[in-house]
Amino acid sequence: MIERTVARIPGFDTEAAEAAQRALDAKTKPRGSLGRLEELACRLAGIRGEANPGALEPAIVVCAADHGVAAEGVSAYPPEVTGQMLANFAAGGAAVCVLARQAGARLVVADLGVLQPVPNPAILSRRVRAGTANAAQGPAMSKAEMREAVAVGIELADRLAAEGVGIVAMGEMGIGNTTAAAALSAALLRVNPDGVCGRGTGIDDAGLAHKRATVWRMLEANVASPYDPLGAVAAVGGLEIAALVGLVLGCAANRTPVLVDGFITAAAAMAAVCTEERCGEVLIASHLSPEPGHRLLLDYLHLEPLLDLGLRLGEGSGAALALPLVAAATAVLDEMATFEEAGVSDAGA
Amino acid sequence: MIERTVARIPGFDTEAAEAAQRALDAKTKPRGSLGRLEELACRLAGIRGEANPGALEPAIVVCAADHGVAAEGVSAYPPEVTGQMLANFAAGGAAVCVLARQAGARLVVADLGVLQPVPNPAILSRRVRAGTANAAQGPAMSKAEMREAVAVGIELADRLAAEGVGIVAMGEMGIGNTTAAAALSAALLRVNPDGVCGRGTGIDDAGLAHKRATVWRMLEANVASPYDPLGAVAAVGGLEIAALVGLVLGCAANRTPVLVDGFITAAAAMAAVCTEERCGEVLIASHLSPEPGHRLLLDYLHLEPLLDLGLRLGEGSGAALALPLVAAATAVLDEMATFEEAGVSDAGA
Repeated sequence: MIERTVARIPGFDTEAAEAAQRALDAKTKPRGSLGRLEELACRLAGIRGEANPGALEPAIVVCAADHGVAAEGVSAYPPEVTGQMLANFAAGGAAVCVLARQAGARLVVADLGVLQPVPNPAILSRRVRAGTANAAQGPAMSKAEMREAVAVGIELADRLAAEGVGIVAMGEMGIGNTTAAAALSAALLRVNPDGVCGRGTGIDDAGLAHKRATVWRMLEANVASPYDPLGAVAAVGGLEIAALVGLVLGCAANRTPVLVDGFITAAAAMAAVCTEERCGEVLIASHLSPEPGHRLLLDYLHLEPLLDLGLRLGEGSGAALALPLVAAATAVLDEMATFEEAGVSDAGA
Repeated sequence: MIERTVARIPGFDTEAAEAAQRALDAKTKPRGSLGRLEELACRLAGIRGEANPGALEPAIVVCAADHGVAAEGVSAYPPEVTGQMLANFAAGGAAVCVLARQAGARLVVADLGVLQPVPNPAILSRRVRAGTANAAQGPAMSKAEMREAVAVGIELADRLAAEGVGIVAMGEMGIGNTTAAAALSAALLRVNPDGVCGRGTGIDDAGLAHKRATVWRMLEANVASPYDPLGAVAAVGGLEIAALVGLVLGCAANRTPVLVDGFITAAAAMAAVCTEERCGEVLIASHLSPEPGHRLLLDYLHLEPLLDLGLRLGEGSGAALALPLVAAATAVLDEMATFEEAGVSDAGA
């Protein structure tokens, strides 16, 4: 399924993007004066393969799972919070629920393997296993489990595209997952793990030192390299990260632009790009988080974040906050009058 | 009227802002993890004087007028574009119209004195005079005219507040008005005019040199100082800037937060703050434009922009793009569940 999906990826439509820029240049504004909003509009046009893609129906996809490595005490929160937050997502009380409503986006929450499942129709049960194994001691999951989780993401992307969704925002929940993302990033970027470990949801100095040591142990206990990116995901986890890799692959195959959220979703996007480079063409960076590995990943992916608001919550909250900019970009392209239509004199230039 | 309005300004409610931060700290997220969105929510609470201000009905107020100094050839566009763009605003085809619809904001366009008025019910006619005099040769307007224009802004702020508007985004239109704003900024900040002159809507190197020379002439031909900020507005213009000064004064008096747009609206906000310091407490910087004077003004006003997208259009377009962040901030404060409500374990910290 993964190979079939990769084979379907059409790639960026440069002609559509250039046609969008020409259309913007004819609108009643000085050329280029809407700055990065114009770049965004052209990028969306190129991804969709349409000079004027119109309003894109948004969905926020939150993949959740637990991490065996949480047993090492790498997070400020206990592992049961993953399941508790899933219940909070189902009840509509979490930040991403509020921000999804604000953005008019549907919210899809998938359980890839939390320790304490939440039986609720608002949560898609796609459980591969009940949390990963402790990756500081060996592989987080088997390759078969990894492929099953990646397939969940692909199926979600296919289903949403078939239902008319035109843009997907990535989100995640999983206590311990900045540790998994740090190990994955260090492996894929081939950088010192210390440089990609941050405070996650709020650990102190001692916690950060312990987290760094744990990531070193994860990379010593496993084979994780950029030459086998999906193998690296299986090795250090997690299940939700594997599903997000699949989500990016599936969106790329469906010409669906993908808003990257914070560090964890960026690590998943990186694994997708290492698997198939053309995945990078559908990515849009919503924001820059204070996690030190986030900027490294975005630089490697040649992505410039739209927002820089010091967000470090995850859940897709930053991607949700960028959705109105996406809507504004497509609306400007679709709705603004041209100089000719409006009878406005253009500049000599 | 100006003095009565200043006397009504209540000032920032620190207790409401602190109560908002306490409420945010109890929500199901690591403390402070929504970064500047939390700061924004607290600032809105303090301005409104309510710990939970709820959803704020937005309005975008675009003040338009022509500038005698445009005769010096300081803009890439001819002066008739001001009136043409007013017609474009009325027809709904301009960028700010599209962005207002996206943000669910009402759009108020006031003609303070364009050369070619647009008879259209969508344009509020508040004409003080048909464009300013050429400020490179003497005062742009009389002090009585300046006070009349300021009063228009105050009346708009009062009327919108009475109609239930809870946040106002500043916008402007006027060919030549980055030149007026540069002269005003240089006078109020007491800086070298060369440092606050930029390319506006797109002049070339020769145009920029000429614009700088023109701003020097404006400051030589007039008395403009920070000790008489409203006198400086009368001296270098323009009518729409004077109205925007009044808008800020009126919003401050009504506890209405004000989203500053680009350089011109920031210069107007600066004149309001020089008139009455407490006006600064209701200001929120929507974005950072490439105009060099914009950052200087925001620094002086202690404002950190929410967006940095290279926008240089004006019209209120940047302020309109920040409205969804305002809506998200108030929604998070109003709608997110607390740890206790959601039964989620809080961190030890």
